[in-house]
Amino acid sequence: MSNNKDIPIGVFDSGIGGLSVLKQFIRFLPYERYIYLGDTARVPYGNKSSETVKEYSRQCTRFLLDKGVKLVVVACNTASSVALDSVKKNSDVPVIDMISPAAGAALRATQNGKIGVIGTRATISSNSYSNAIKSLTNPDDIEVISQPCPLFVPIVEEGWIRHPATEMIAEEYLRSFKENDVDTLVLGCTHYPLLSELISNILKGITLIDSGEHAAVNAIRTLAESGSLVEEKSEYLKKPNIEFYVTDVPSTFFEVARRFLGFDVDSPQRVNIEQ
Amino acid sequence: MSNNKDIPIGVFDSGIGGLSVLKQFIRFLPYERYIYLGDTARVPYGNKSSETVKEYSRQCTRFLLDKGVKLVVVACNTASSVALDSVKKNSDVPVIDMISPAAGAALRATQNGKIGVIGTRATISSNSYSNAIKSLTNPDDIEVISQPCPLFVPIVEEGWIRHPATEMIAEEYLRSFKENDVDTLVLGCTHYPLLSELISNILKGITLIDSGEHAAVNAIRTLAESGSLVEEKSEYLKKPNIEFYVTDVPSTFFEVARRFLGFDVDSPQRVNIEQ
Repeated sequence: MSNNKDIPIGVFDSGIGGLSVLKQFIRFLPYERYIYLGDTARVPYGNKSSETVKEYSRQCTRFLLDKGVKLVVVACNTASSVALDSVKKNSDVPVIDMISPAAGAALRATQNGKIGVIGTRATISSNSYSNAIKSLTNPDDIEVISQPCPLFVPIVEEGWIRHPATEMIAEEYLRSFKENDVDTLVLGCTHYPLLSELISNILKGITLIDSGEHAAVNAIRTLAESGSLVEEKSEYLKKPNIEFYVTDVPSTFFEVARRFLGFDVDSPQRVNIEQ
Repeated sequence: MSNNKDIPIGVFDSGIGGLSVLKQFIRFLPYERYIYLGDTARVPYGNKSSETVKEYSRQCTRFLLDKGVKLVVVACNTASSVALDSVKKNSDVPVIDMISPAAGAALRATQNGKIGVIGTRATISSNSYSNAIKSLTNPDDIEVISQPCPLFVPIVEEGWIRHPATEMIAEEYLRSFKENDVDTLVLGCTHYPLLSELISNILKGITLIDSGEHAAVNAIRTLAESGSLVEEKSEYLKKPNIEFYVTDVPSTFFEVARRFLGFDVDSPQRVNIEQ
């Protein structure tokens, strides 16, 4: 299968948030080629019916498969919560989701069995993290405390990462974790890793679980076992190899993409994926 | 090589600090068996001649190989800086060091080309990180600013992670990174990840490079490519499978080990590795 090596990894999200997942992939797999698809014309998925999210996810998967990817990364917590089975059914390459790698990591990290989960309303209502965590162990051993944090996405997109108002909002959202002595917190939304510093300051000593990080580690294993990782180069690569596709180009695309990835990105290609 | 799977991974350090590296391995590879050797009778290596460090490292490697490990992790920055060639020469299994994975990660993380390195006096004087970073790119593109932080090891062992004095000491050590606008900092000593929160608070927005984390990712790739990773289990493992060996049992062993790993460890076996 060594001819699989130079084929790109496909990553899709409902919007730009999945770039925090892509960032983790680049951190550990810098020499891979990536195709990123943001369904920015139909973002967010979180307030849509599961039928619709499944259909959109199927279209995103189809687009990536048509590009010939060797792996599909569902870099969207809502799609991972709701549409994973349908993505897997439609894919002839391995699929990596956001939920299961993070659920396992949270369980291994907790010492007192009290795990917190934050996410959008849709992700929290789906109970996907809580179910995934409890399916791995005796549910009575573990307490999962969930909290939707709907203001975090717009705050991150606005770039108010260190604003005093953000601190006040975070204090409010995170209060129940403090009161319940939670020792491990799953960042169940792709936007939240950008608030890690603030969250760590409020919940001193907490272990934060970044879904993208554990998804990336999962991908290394999956690709390496089938001999599909590109060779490590000894030379430093100035810029990762990423093709960006979006279904709409929002006016803040470049600014937000820079905030998520930490570097300037090339212009995305606008595509129509409805089929 | 699938018969390699259930064989343990060997990790050695001059003392207990390597447990922060082991922690990263457990985070990403929870189902592996581990053998940890701390050469606590002869710690620290940092103030010893390179001949002596090479000889000690050879003995540690021999001990792990006699236990039948499938991988040797040199979880000690001094040994990685000084004795890597000799460890590799003496090992018939792959060897993972602390320096090269972190050097590559730092280079990929920096945006402005200004990388900081902190470590013990021995690691900083060896220039191992600076040389490794510069060997990967055009040296003129990169500025590496190094700072020994000798008080950090005793402070971490004392457990004064959030003491105001620690903050004052860190402010002093890290001042040059602030003044020089460094955007990426390599934690070039196994004790330093325990000070991450404090360092991030002082150097806002900095990217910290944890050598143990990148060594663990390197190990996943190395083992997966030769089919030597154990299978992922779907069941939650309460406690990782680790055998601890030390050349001396310091009175604070359990307390310090708990601080590094985040859980209580079984009694270590005291061994004599001189041969």
